[in-house]
Amino acid sequence: MTIALLPDERVDDLLAENLKIIQSDEVFSFSMDAVLLARFCSVPIKGRILDLCTGNGVVPLLLSTRTKARIEGLEIQERLHGMASRSVGMNKLEEQIHISQGDLRNYHEVAGYGQYDLVTVNPPYMAAHTSVPNENEHYAIARHEIHCTLEDVIASCSRQSRTGGKVAMVHRPSRLTDILILMRKYRLEPKRIRFVHPRAGSEANMVLIESVRDSKPEVRLLPPLLVYNEQGEYCREIMEIYYGRSKELKDR
Amino acid sequence: MTIALLPDERVDDLLAENLKIIQSDEVFSFSMDAVLLARFCSVPIKGRILDLCTGNGVVPLLLSTRTKARIEGLEIQERLHGMASRSVGMNKLEEQIHISQGDLRNYHEVAGYGQYDLVTVNPPYMAAHTSVPNENEHYAIARHEIHCTLEDVIASCSRQSRTGGKVAMVHRPSRLTDILILMRKYRLEPKRIRFVHPRAGSEANMVLIESVRDSKPEVRLLPPLLVYNEQGEYCREIMEIYYGRSKELKDR
Repeated sequence: MTIALLPDERVDDLLAENLKIIQSDEVFSFSMDAVLLARFCSVPIKGRILDLCTGNGVVPLLLSTRTKARIEGLEIQERLHGMASRSVGMNKLEEQIHISQGDLRNYHEVAGYGQYDLVTVNPPYMAAHTSVPNENEHYAIARHEIHCTLEDVIASCSRQSRTGGKVAMVHRPSRLTDILILMRKYRLEPKRIRFVHPRAGSEANMVLIESVRDSKPEVRLLPPLLVYNEQGEYCREIMEIYYGRSKELKDR
Repeated sequence: MTIALLPDERVDDLLAENLKIIQSDEVFSFSMDAVLLARFCSVPIKGRILDLCTGNGVVPLLLSTRTKARIEGLEIQERLHGMASRSVGMNKLEEQIHISQGDLRNYHEVAGYGQYDLVTVNPPYMAAHTSVPNENEHYAIARHEIHCTLEDVIASCSRQSRTGGKVAMVHRPSRLTDILILMRKYRLEPKRIRFVHPRAGSEANMVLIESVRDSKPEVRLLPPLLVYNEQGEYCREIMEIYYGRSKELKDR
């Protein structure tokens, strides 16, 4: 099967997993945030997983190496939906991964409520009220709360998750209070939090949060994840996440 | 002046500050938590500081080395109030530090509202509904939410703080969601958070949070504070906090 590429698109290796992914500097390329989210979340061995704001499908592709569960991705932008779907085909993962185009604010009208064992999301980070810089529409939608606010995202995660199901999110630490308040409001109790620091002495620039639908309060603060060591090289854990093998459940 | 000691009491050196403090294994001894809180908080150069749940007065004593502001401590237990007051006298700090006995739930009836530039608190960590172990009353009151819940503590911090004033708390990370929700509820916006991890690869066992009364949302996640290095010795920053000189504002 031949997969068509548009002029601005390229095919990148997706790290150590023998996967390929279609990217475009003009439209969307995945970031470390998505990679860390895909490794951080607790994946069910089977069942159903939903990745909201899936972009070019990087999280579903990475999750496919960790589980045999069915993985669905939802993306609002037609162009990115197309890229993600073609990447799934390129990796012959159509049986496990399905990418839909749609709006997370009304996805329950299509998918129903409480159908998923895990919902992951790497949402736009910039609050709606912040000014949108001079960037193209694709990046603006991915980065700014144009089509969905943080509350829209967390409400959707809550609607789609079953009782006891997990919701994993990556975001900016500056929004931590808002995130925890909204998660509690929508019955997603934070249970595991991990901060990502560029270096040992640096403030965190990323936070990974996993909550459980309808669970009791009590959160664990995991060891900090450092990206670079004192020599400016990736720390060992980052190297393992990016380049190591993670066969885990796939081989069971 | 001679300071009387009760039979179970002893006088300890308070770290590197040439201060003395009365302690008792039967009643109360300060912990690392209080020391880290006293160093973490942003102290005003002048003005008024209030330390709630002051215990044997360790936080006011340590803060006196960082500022010329007037420092007040509030303690509900008569016995600890006595220890703290005698420690203030022993260090000849009666002009800067005043310890009161009272209940933080109605302290505004005595002290009014919004009078403080900084409120610090190292409250009981264990939620009211958890079982109180077989320990003496002094320790039980210091460790469990017997006389005040987390909400009582945060409400009191809010009442006592002026607009733009700071509130600094040390607590267990497992209560993080509750703390942030209650701070927002009582108009104390979290601005600086630092997690304390026993070792680099360990979960956090302490959290330091500073909020500002009536401020805008946006929180900074400071570098993790590690207590022990790989050799099991105190890390340099802990050594500096415990044994280094911190003359800072005192010398200005």
